[in-house]
Amino acid sequence: MKHKSFEDMNCSVAQSMEVLGERWSLLIIRDCFAGLRRFGQFQKKLGIARNILTVRLSRLVEEGILLKSPIAEGAQQEYVLTQKGIDLYPVLMSLMQWGDKHRPNPKGVRLYFVERATGKPVKGLRVISEDGRELGPEDVQQVAGPGLID
Amino acid sequence: MKHKSFEDMNCSVAQSMEVLGERWSLLIIRDCFAGLRRFGQFQKKLGIARNILTVRLSRLVEEGILLKSPIAEGAQQEYVLTQKGIDLYPVLMSLMQWGDKHRPNPKGVRLYFVERATGKPVKGLRVISEDGRELGPEDVQQVAGPGLID
Repeated sequence: MKHKSFEDMNCSVAQSMEVLGERWSLLIIRDCFAGLRRFGQFQKKLGIARNILTVRLSRLVEEGILLKSPIAEGAQQEYVLTQKGIDLYPVLMSLMQWGDKHRPNPKGVRLYFVERATGKPVKGLRVISEDGRELGPEDVQQVAGPGLID
Repeated sequence: MKHKSFEDMNCSVAQSMEVLGERWSLLIIRDCFAGLRRFGQFQKKLGIARNILTVRLSRLVEEGILLKSPIAEGAQQEYVLTQKGIDLYPVLMSLMQWGDKHRPNPKGVRLYFVERATGKPVKGLRVISEDGRELGPEDVQQVAGPGLID
């Protein structure tokens, strides 16, 4: 099925979704953050068809989100997150927070995030003012920048 | 095309993507945050086929992300974000931050976010420790909660 592309939309959300909106892509990236690196690992974890996984991994490499690591002879190809991929951490975290709240497991929270150094639960993802205060959606206003002004 | 559902995956990211992963859904929600409310407004802004927009709006209402507002006689139906929808604000913000950084408009930032009260640019979305410090991906560790433990 050929989709209408978001490529020409002058919007950063649309531009992100043009890359990330393909089914499975964000779950593959999630699994990379969890330490998975090999084709077989992704396939087993996701239960995804091999041909679709191949296409998704290629696209993520093409987009510079994953890097195909050089492999030693006889070793398996590995996929690792680039900085561009690591920058998706807030995207995953925000999706997780929302899913936890609105599509929870009845037994309780699926994953906690704790600060590595202290072992204490993190507060979560927040919008922060210039001087570090937490802001809500109602506190924030959008202003067009040079990329939106003709 | 029938997709494999993410419904049975015990993961909050997958659960979110089961709802939000459909093409257009997050762009419709983005437009709701920007103040759009009517079918015709969404259609014009997105350039989306009417039948697809109808299905997407129905799904978002069904999922409790949008509410179809009661309409006065002769008025047009309006769609407004519920609290569940408003809670998607960090998801949109994170996608915007990433798109701004990695798929920028060559002329510059598309949208600034400023604090309504002060007019100052916000710092953006950050992961915050229990006592309010900013944390990076490397500072944070995942721990399985009751929803993941059998």
